[in-house]
Amino acid sequence: MMKEAVYHRPGGPFAYPVTPRQLRVRLRAKKGDLDACRVWCADRYAGDKEEGSWTVCQKVASDQLFDYFEGLIPGETRRIKYVFHLRDVSGEEWWLGETGLEKERKEAGVFQYAYIHPTEVFMTPEWAKDGVVYQIFPERFHNGDKSNDPRGAEPWTADARPRHDSFYGGDLQGVIDRLPYLEQLGISAIYFTPIFLSPSHHKYDTADYYQIDPQFGEMSTFKELVREAHRRGIKVILDAVFNHSGDQFFAFQDVLKYGERSRYKDWFHIDSFPVVQEPEPNYETFANQVATMPKLRTEHPEVREYLLQIVRFWMTETGIDGWRLDVANEVDHQFWRDFRKVVKEINPEALIVGEIWHDASAWLEGDQFDSVMNYLFRESVLRFFATGEIDASRFDAELTRARMIYKEQAVQVMWNLLDSHDTERFLTSCDESLEKFRLAVLFQLTYVGTPLIYYGDEVGMTGKTDPDCRRPMIWDEKLQNKQLLAYYRRLISIRRNSKALSRGSYRTWHLDPNTGVYAYVRQYGRETVGVVLNNSNEKRAVRLDVAWFGPEYLVDALRGDLIQVNQSQIHVELAPYQGMLLMQSIEQSLS
Amino acid sequence: MMKEAVYHRPGGPFAYPVTPRQLRVRLRAKKGDLDACRVWCADRYAGDKEEGSWTVCQKVASDQLFDYFEGLIPGETRRIKYVFHLRDVSGEEWWLGETGLEKERKEAGVFQYAYIHPTEVFMTPEWAKDGVVYQIFPERFHNGDKSNDPRGAEPWTADARPRHDSFYGGDLQGVIDRLPYLEQLGISAIYFTPIFLSPSHHKYDTADYYQIDPQFGEMSTFKELVREAHRRGIKVILDAVFNHSGDQFFAFQDVLKYGERSRYKDWFHIDSFPVVQEPEPNYETFANQVATMPKLRTEHPEVREYLLQIVRFWMTETGIDGWRLDVANEVDHQFWRDFRKVVKEINPEALIVGEIWHDASAWLEGDQFDSVMNYLFRESVLRFFATGEIDASRFDAELTRARMIYKEQAVQVMWNLLDSHDTERFLTSCDESLEKFRLAVLFQLTYVGTPLIYYGDEVGMTGKTDPDCRRPMIWDEKLQNKQLLAYYRRLISIRRNSKALSRGSYRTWHLDPNTGVYAYVRQYGRETVGVVLNNSNEKRAVRLDVAWFGPEYLVDALRGDLIQVNQSQIHVELAPYQGMLLMQSIEQSLS
Repeated sequence: MMKEAVYHRPGGPFAYPVTPRQLRVRLRAKKGDLDACRVWCADRYAGDKEEGSWTVCQKVASDQLFDYFEGLIPGETRRIKYVFHLRDVSGEEWWLGETGLEKERKEAGVFQYAYIHPTEVFMTPEWAKDGVVYQIFPERFHNGDKSNDPRGAEPWTADARPRHDSFYGGDLQGVIDRLPYLEQLGISAIYFTPIFLSPSHHKYDTADYYQIDPQFGEMSTFKELVREAHRRGIKVILDAVFNHSGDQFFAFQDVLKYGERSRYKDWFHIDSFPVVQEPEPNYETFANQVATMPKLRTEHPEVREYLLQIVRFWMTETGIDGWRLDVANEVDHQFWRDFRKVVKEINPEALIVGEIWHDASAWLEGDQFDSVMNYLFRESVLRFFATGEIDASRFDAELTRARMIYKEQAVQVMWNLLDSHDTERFLTSCDESLEKFRLAVLFQLTYVGTPLIYYGDEVGMTGKTDPDCRRPMIWDEKLQNKQLLAYYRRLISIRRNSKALSRGSYRTWHLDPNTGVYAYVRQYGRETVGVVLNNSNEKRAVRLDVAWFGPEYLVDALRGDLIQVNQSQIHVELAPYQGMLLMQSIEQSLS
Repeated sequence: MMKEAVYHRPGGPFAYPVTPRQLRVRLRAKKGDLDACRVWCADRYAGDKEEGSWTVCQKVASDQLFDYFEGLIPGETRRIKYVFHLRDVSGEEWWLGETGLEKERKEAGVFQYAYIHPTEVFMTPEWAKDGVVYQIFPERFHNGDKSNDPRGAEPWTADARPRHDSFYGGDLQGVIDRLPYLEQLGISAIYFTPIFLSPSHHKYDTADYYQIDPQFGEMSTFKELVREAHRRGIKVILDAVFNHSGDQFFAFQDVLKYGERSRYKDWFHIDSFPVVQEPEPNYETFANQVATMPKLRTEHPEVREYLLQIVRFWMTETGIDGWRLDVANEVDHQFWRDFRKVVKEINPEALIVGEIWHDASAWLEGDQFDSVMNYLFRESVLRFFATGEIDASRFDAELTRARMIYKEQAVQVMWNLLDSHDTERFLTSCDESLEKFRLAVLFQLTYVGTPLIYYGDEVGMTGKTDPDCRRPMIWDEKLQNKQLLAYYRRLISIRRNSKALSRGSYRTWHLDPNTGVYAYVRQYGRETVGVVLNNSNEKRAVRLDVAWFGPEYLVDALRGDLIQVNQSQIHVELAPYQGMLLMQSIEQSLS
């Protein structure tokens, strides 16, 4: 056994409660090294001679270097001490405790999880675990009310090519009008990019956090939208842009006007007075000197209270179901802790999703966000399906890593996106290869976490990065890819009717870096779903072990084919870029 | 290079700011694998083609499996992306970023430290970094006022052997009377175990958090004590027992009396009503059903506010300098975050020290405690010097691990104890071998962190674990070990006059698991101090490289010997259990 590869720490994603009486523990070892892993635990105040109890740890994932084992310690106590017992493939045995990795149990010591506080158990919303989210960029989704169109609005056509200063007239009435479309698509929540008053088309430069932008509608329009969405079982998530305001925000205007005498001067990060915006701002901004987006000092008690009051207002006044947090990684942690408290006190089932493009573990401990926009997922999916930069082995390893840095509660509701208003459209990244795109969509809709669909992807919209990815939605049915739309509907429906796909465990089933075949299994209780992907431009045949599936045949829910099981194996042939969604019965496949 | 051994994560003790513009990063690799380690960084918004800057990472420590490298990224920015560049001993080069350990830089990706918030920089008190703390168990330190003696107080004699229910009459006036002794000893702070009203001798079962126990004195006595201590440059730390109250605490009495109708019923964890204490308590308690110590529900807003008000009261009313937190690991993290905020708002230089016996990293991120009672240190020192269970190699490795799980700011003020009111006396653990004990004390007083001296150790007191370790202090000079006391005074004085010993870096200099010789170097700016320990019962000779020391001779500050440097080496001989404290000049050694 390679001792250097063995890793555990008594915190983070390696030890955390999933209920007030259950502690999940994880251990990492060199790939292939361990034959068995189990964990002994007892109350921290129990004597060393007392019995304690044993839990078997299962191998739950692997990457290119490591295997990961997990066990669920069923606590008769909230105060836990534990020690791992490992047996390597040569039969040698080891103990891992706080003092080290040792041959002798008493030399290894014990890890301690001092006390499970019920208030510290990470809880993410139940509804989100079964969700499929649809992202709407309101200016570009649908124009339902011509009366509020911005001056100079451009024609809403399929060949429109937006510039940074384009307007098209999309609005909230447009979304209300299209709710039947969304309901039929099957999604369970809408995430809206910002809708509050702002001069830009994207509205990330907020002028007034209390006002719906009149180009989008009025408060009454928004309330109707929430009501109508809720009636159709669709949740509503708004975008909280708290890292910075817009420069037209009253407090920043006050600072521009009164300089050092402004009572709001400490709400921002001002380098010197008077405050100037040109040629370069002398205050901190979002990104690189974006003068229209002055950074807010969220550590300031007044700023914090002002922003939290906005949260209270929109949640209680309109009943929205959660928040997506813009530039969430540049706001202080204590602000987000206070934010979570306010949000969850109003609605414990409200969802909190941060915009973080990198490892977000510091925000997903359980005291801040429920989830993040999973750009790590996007990156791997992009490089496996669209550009072909990585093979199945590396793809699987990257997925493992991106799951293993987080706790299960977050992984279950991670927003898995292919693209967004901040990236190139995925179909464009596929060089408009629909077969590649469909394979990636199958993966997105059968992976663990919440699929996040960017408006228009489902009808085959394309576009390079911002501003091109923000074209007006294609509603002309002759120009929509109806087959693709039907494919989305089918996959969303299957997913939402399958606990295995929405909440099940994830296990790699088969991978071959040379052929591009990648297969995995989702499992929940007695329900099992297998997915086989041929990410290559050649026909592939593959033999798969299905002993644990159960029945005598499997059904490919995408084509309806029955696949015979022989001696606990199936033998399948896949066309280039074909995917299979293998279910245990015809009934299940029709759901 | 063993890829499996390479470890970094963009948080915890592996990436943390030490000032608003400096990020400390750490990387772990297999011992001996790396020839060089450096880190490239730039602003997160900088393009990939922009230059960025390079920082060399130094090897700062090793254990039996790993080397640890550290670099200090000097931020021209608060938003940092970085990637490590490694060169192994065979000349092969690697990049480590968020995406992995790769041969190609672009494949490795970058780690991101999103934003350094000044409010999130972990700051520990400056004074604590130069401190030596003395722990007083007030009932047993000195009886300065016979008028407040408990009924049945037993005679204060050197052969007293306390039982769990013994009282001896120690009090605060006694401490005031002995301040000259403490000043002469040279300590910079006193940590008092609890002094608030309670029926027990140890007073961990608080009856009234607002009242000094009358057996110890009055409020005026305590205020005088703080005033007099401060006048002598001695800080005062009190014990905050917030995990549980005593059963005589008014709120618990109310619950006992009114049961379910008590307005305090939610202040505790009651299983059923009526509340009973015998034969077994039907409520949660400290440890195993200690009926006199009902656990407080610190998550409850009223309880939190009640306890934080106690903190405000004692800090503002008496000017104490910090808190030691009893059973700190069983209280919820949010309580401690609120606690830190209250404490540091009143006095940013107040010290917060938790009682945690195991890995305390979850409390030492910077948002909760400054330090903990370093029982990990004690365990290693005990097993190396007292019982001889571990050799110099393992001792060094354990020290490394106990430093590497924490951020530097905490390590600098970690309370390094040999013993306490909860353990056997260290001299007793040494089978009363004074030479072993002296060697351990030399180590304690020259190691990185804050030495914590348990009252009486300095005069040679002995005792098995509680209650025997709580004997009344020996004041009879004929019975005190005066030589030992002089030794303590000398070492404390040297330490307090040496920035290298109090604040310097720590590097292992020499270790030999076979001979028991262990040597290390402390360095701060141009000041260097070396320590050589012979932890064996035989004479040892050792040759040490001193190129980086500088001068032509070194001085052993303990014996005054001059040691000649020849060709950048010294050759020293140590008697059994002898230690040497090597300084760069006679002046330095006399300090």
